[in-house]
Amino acid sequence: MIRMAAIGTGSITRRTVAAARSVTGLRFTAAYSRDAARAAALASDLGLEHASADLMALLASPDVDAVYVASPNAVHAGHVRAALDAGKHVFCEKPLVGTVAEFDELATLAAERGVVLLENMRSAHDPVMTRVADLLPTLGPVRRVSFSYSQKSARYDALLRGEQVGVFDPAVGGGALTDLGIYCLHPLVRLFGSPAEVAASFVHVATGADASGAALASYPGMVAELSWSKSTWGRVGSTIEGEAGTLVLDHIAELHELTVEYADGRRVAERPDKEPDNITYALRRFVAVVEGASGADDLAWSRGAIDLLERIRARR
Amino acid sequence: MIRMAAIGTGSITRRTVAAARSVTGLRFTAAYSRDAARAAALASDLGLEHASADLMALLASPDVDAVYVASPNAVHAGHVRAALDAGKHVFCEKPLVGTVAEFDELATLAAERGVVLLENMRSAHDPVMTRVADLLPTLGPVRRVSFSYSQKSARYDALLRGEQVGVFDPAVGGGALTDLGIYCLHPLVRLFGSPAEVAASFVHVATGADASGAALASYPGMVAELSWSKSTWGRVGSTIEGEAGTLVLDHIAELHELTVEYADGRRVAERPDKEPDNITYALRRFVAVVEGASGADDLAWSRGAIDLLERIRARR
Repeated sequence: MIRMAAIGTGSITRRTVAAARSVTGLRFTAAYSRDAARAAALASDLGLEHASADLMALLASPDVDAVYVASPNAVHAGHVRAALDAGKHVFCEKPLVGTVAEFDELATLAAERGVVLLENMRSAHDPVMTRVADLLPTLGPVRRVSFSYSQKSARYDALLRGEQVGVFDPAVGGGALTDLGIYCLHPLVRLFGSPAEVAASFVHVATGADASGAALASYPGMVAELSWSKSTWGRVGSTIEGEAGTLVLDHIAELHELTVEYADGRRVAERPDKEPDNITYALRRFVAVVEGASGADDLAWSRGAIDLLERIRARR
Repeated sequence: MIRMAAIGTGSITRRTVAAARSVTGLRFTAAYSRDAARAAALASDLGLEHASADLMALLASPDVDAVYVASPNAVHAGHVRAALDAGKHVFCEKPLVGTVAEFDELATLAAERGVVLLENMRSAHDPVMTRVADLLPTLGPVRRVSFSYSQKSARYDALLRGEQVGVFDPAVGGGALTDLGIYCLHPLVRLFGSPAEVAASFVHVATGADASGAALASYPGMVAELSWSKSTWGRVGSTIEGEAGTLVLDHIAELHELTVEYADGRRVAERPDKEPDNITYALRRFVAVVEGASGADDLAWSRGAIDLLERIRARR
């Protein structure tokens, strides 16, 4: 049984702890926040045994096997480094870090300490995405890809009124690219590898954060558009267009169904039975890797997505 | 009654002549081809009185008031120039020409001769597109636009087998950008004006023609992705995402229905009664301008689309 401590008290922590209830071999046992009252409230809400405001003590505890890092993006690296250094396995919210240099440093540290480092890319092991990977060779040469994730933030109107809003605060790593765009980047890299060239364009809000944007990723014989927005709503799916067929996903992160229309008239439409939250699949993967499965692919996909993130951000 | 001669014997000529049957004030009376037999066959098929293989004689005829130019893109400019010079009104297939310099020369010539020059952008006066323009102010600040037109050419597999295929022959102006992409460019310019910056990426086939591609068009506070393909099929609509609502079009060129979902929960879904072919609306517009309505907006939209075409092509 992997006993896990959560760092960070945001809504994603509540969601991940809830998803973990149907995961065998892992149990959340502790909550950490710099603010002792918040840590205590979260532990109480979620039925966790321990609350801590002392990170070093928590990481030194023999009762903690692994750490779930769900702090603001800008402080992921520090929390991950401290946990790995203490010999704990780490499951970290996406994007793990903002640069490949940081990623490589942390991956090396994990290898040295003999512990697992994995990113919570919840779509990666979603059965619908796994099915996409299986169907990909049937599409013929893929020429166009369009992955899009637009979801207007519930806090966007507050931001426009001048309120302080964390998800649009660049100081804590806020912005639409790292929040939603990363869900477009990760499957692109997983399915097609790293692009040869990248162009990008951003729309910023008054805080300096990017509220929406788009990128073109060029491959030999293929071009992908990625787009994301926290200031508007999206209403269309994501597609992979091959010469022999076109695959449509209903949503690039919250996957429910896929359809493929083939040149020969065949049509595949699938809506698999699934766990209610696909974080469950990412957590099960984490357990499997801690128990000995290779996490090499997962790390390669995360590294590729972070590399692409860095290249897109450089075009800002 | 505007008596019109068709230059070019491709399928678009048949389609346009058929659409003209429900247009009051205009009648196709002649077909031209360099090949007399082809001109005669087309005239016979379409029930036109005259067939000609002598362009200068046709343009000198007092029985011809206007010319429909549907020759290959690469020779549009020469045909349009000759017709305008002869004092004939011109309705030309999209894209009218490939450069703004050519466009300006031809527009100036038309003004000097006191005749009308208009592009057959069939979506421009489609009632669904007109409704989009009407609804645009209700969407709030628009942050993201995605216009896409992918339709695998029936000739693509022949091309892959090594056959000569006109639509993929750069020598006659073939390629996906000018054929399908222009349908994405034109409404972008019509609805939002010219972008500040453009990036683009193309996928080429062995002939050197572009078979698919995508562009990013950046505006202050907004980013648009445009994508097109003649090597794959598209399966998603085009969208305009504003802070107050998102508008979805079923197809950027063959428009049938639009929906808008607003932040306040209102939903607009419209599927207007329409003519079977929206070329009819473009032809009616041509008649109206010949009869005295101002074609200034039409020319400005065409010029903007050609400017954007030129800027995108420069990124090839």
